[in-house]
Amino acid sequence: MTHGPSNRPILLVEDNPMDLDLARRAFARCNPSNPIEVARDGQEVLDWIPRWEAGEPLPLLILLDLKLPRVDGLEVLRRLRAHPISQALPVVVLTSSSDEGDIATAYRLHANSYIVKPVNFEAFMEVAARIEQYWRLINHPPR
Amino acid sequence: MTHGPSNRPILLVEDNPMDLDLARRAFARCNPSNPIEVARDGQEVLDWIPRWEAGEPLPLLILLDLKLPRVDGLEVLRRLRAHPISQALPVVVLTSSSDEGDIATAYRLHANSYIVKPVNFEAFMEVAARIEQYWRLINHPPR
Repeated sequence: MTHGPSNRPILLVEDNPMDLDLARRAFARCNPSNPIEVARDGQEVLDWIPRWEAGEPLPLLILLDLKLPRVDGLEVLRRLRAHPISQALPVVVLTSSSDEGDIATAYRLHANSYIVKPVNFEAFMEVAARIEQYWRLINHPPR
Repeated sequence: MTHGPSNRPILLVEDNPMDLDLARRAFARCNPSNPIEVARDGQEVLDWIPRWEAGEPLPLLILLDLKLPRVDGLEVLRRLRAHPISQALPVVVLTSSSDEGDIATAYRLHANSYIVKPVNFEAFMEVAARIEQYWRLINHPPR
C-alpha cells in the first residue's frame, strides 16, 4: 500500500522536548524507512520552504503543534497554504488544545486533520502509530 | 477517544453498486453507532447542503468517489468548499483514479485526504476500516 518515494521525511513540529521525544519514538518504531525531521518552532518550519524550492524532498506529512515559539502554529499553517510549494502538503495539527476556535481556524486554514494529543502515554503512542500508518500507508500524498 | 455526537453520519458518495455495498459493509462492521448515508451521484451530495443548513447533522466524514454521474466528484468538492456550511467538512477522496492530475486537483480543492481504492477485496476492507477508525476515533472534526 506504500506510495511514492519511501525517503520522503515526516516533519515533526514540536517545542516541548518530552512530547517531541515521545513522538519521535512512536514514529521511529512503526516506520523504519522514512526519515524524521524536527522543527522546534514555527520559524524553523518556514525556513524549510526555500529548501523545498531548491529541491529537497517534500515531507510526506507535517505534524504541527499549535503553541510554538517565534511563529505560532496557525500562522505557520496560513503561510504554508499561501505558498505554492507547500499549499497541498498534508498537515495534521497535533495539539493539546481542544479549543473550538483553534479547531475552526485550523480547518479554515485547510489543516488536513486536527488531533488532540492524548495526555496518557499509552494513548499517545497508539494515536501516533495510527497517524503514521494512515498518512504513510493509506493516504496518497501529492507529488 | 471519540469526539462529538456519535450520531453524526458518514456520507458515502459512490455510484458503483458493488463498491457501495463493500464500503457499507466495511463501515457498518467497525462502526455500530454512526448512521451511514449514501449519495449515488454528485447532485445528491449537493442536495444535502440545504438540509444541513436547515439543521440536519453535518457528517463526520464524506467519502467521495470522483467519477460520478450528473456532477463530477471534483466539482462536488469545489462546491462543498465554496459553501460556508461545508467548507471545513472532512472529505476523503476514495477513487480508483491514481491520475496525478486528479490527485493534484483534489488537494488544491482541499480534499483532506486522497485514497486510491485497492482492487483486492481484503485490501479494500482493510483500507475502509482504517479510514473509518482514523476519522471517527482519532480525528477531531469541526463542530
